[in-house]
Amino acid sequence: MSFLIELCRFLLVDWIKMRIGGIQMATNKTIAVVVTNDVEDVELTSPREALVKAGYQVCLIGMRAGEIIQGKKGTAFLIDKGIDDVKPEDFRALLIPGGFSPDQLRGDQRFVDFVKAFLENHRPTFAICHGPQLFIQTGLADQLELTAYKTVQPDLAYAGAKVSDQAVVNHNNLITSRNPDDLPQFNQAIVAALAD
Amino acid sequence: MSFLIELCRFLLVDWIKMRIGGIQMATNKTIAVVVTNDVEDVELTSPREALVKAGYQVCLIGMRAGEIIQGKKGTAFLIDKGIDDVKPEDFRALLIPGGFSPDQLRGDQRFVDFVKAFLENHRPTFAICHGPQLFIQTGLADQLELTAYKTVQPDLAYAGAKVSDQAVVNHNNLITSRNPDDLPQFNQAIVAALAD
Repeated sequence: MSFLIELCRFLLVDWIKMRIGGIQMATNKTIAVVVTNDVEDVELTSPREALVKAGYQVCLIGMRAGEIIQGKKGTAFLIDKGIDDVKPEDFRALLIPGGFSPDQLRGDQRFVDFVKAFLENHRPTFAICHGPQLFIQTGLADQLELTAYKTVQPDLAYAGAKVSDQAVVNHNNLITSRNPDDLPQFNQAIVAALAD
Repeated sequence: MSFLIELCRFLLVDWIKMRIGGIQMATNKTIAVVVTNDVEDVELTSPREALVKAGYQVCLIGMRAGEIIQGKKGTAFLIDKGIDDVKPEDFRALLIPGGFSPDQLRGDQRFVDFVKAFLENHRPTFAICHGPQLFIQTGLADQLELTAYKTVQPDLAYAGAKVSDQAVVNHNNLITSRNPDDLPQFNQAIVAALAD
């Protein structure tokens, strides 16, 4: 009987540790990535590698959990969570890779709201290439200093953002870059920001 | 000898007819289409069919003549002329199909200049879906009344355009539509505009 009570106590304590500890770890260590088909493959694979190497988990958020999406260059990606299954506060930071994925996501208000929650609370947000297109739909572009892919720089400037044509812009917890050539500096900046 | 002179006269007259007549016909009857990879297939094939049926020629203008491009859905298209080989005045009108083609073209100043020449002279310009993205780079958006794909409507509004969310907007020789569902009205409007 005392063995059973002891076992039960042990299991209960460990269960609480795992539950609470697990959730805390996930929130502190998990980076949300919003993504769909025709993402610029390397703008997802390269930052993901840098983040995982630095000890973070990366959660791909798309339309539906379990969906397989395909990058512009053909890479297959498994979507970990559907946008309806997640809350911004479950994540340490947000990453938006480029390609033709962001323009599709900004047509879906759920993704716009998710991104907006990070921007309006000045939580760590990382976007590269066409990623910043999503900021236009949040209505907060006029509060941002950033860079982006060259074709969308004018869109963001007209929307009121302060746009600079440089490899990395780091302002108010928002880190942005222009294209795959900027990835080394982008990856370094996002990992450093998380370590602060 | 008189036979040779007669033959020469005949050939010369016919040559002049063909040369001058041919160029006139081309200019009056040829519609320029600016396009590259990942165009929304049906936004090229459907207006092209309507225009050809109405007696017009359609000239696909891309990076290089002879290049084969591929639509988002896999259709192969042969580029008739390279952008360096054409002048806006060689064409009766301009058509810009959507998909991910326009965002790539607006990164190339030669295409922006070509489109700008149509807009600033109020020459017939037809754009559907993402096509109007090209107008932002011309710096003339604030003079336009139009519609576009839902995700790029805010970009155009921030750039100063008067944007309406309707199937067809026809204003000052600029005819625009939102997406493939609008094609029947779009095709009807562009053929009617050319017949005026």
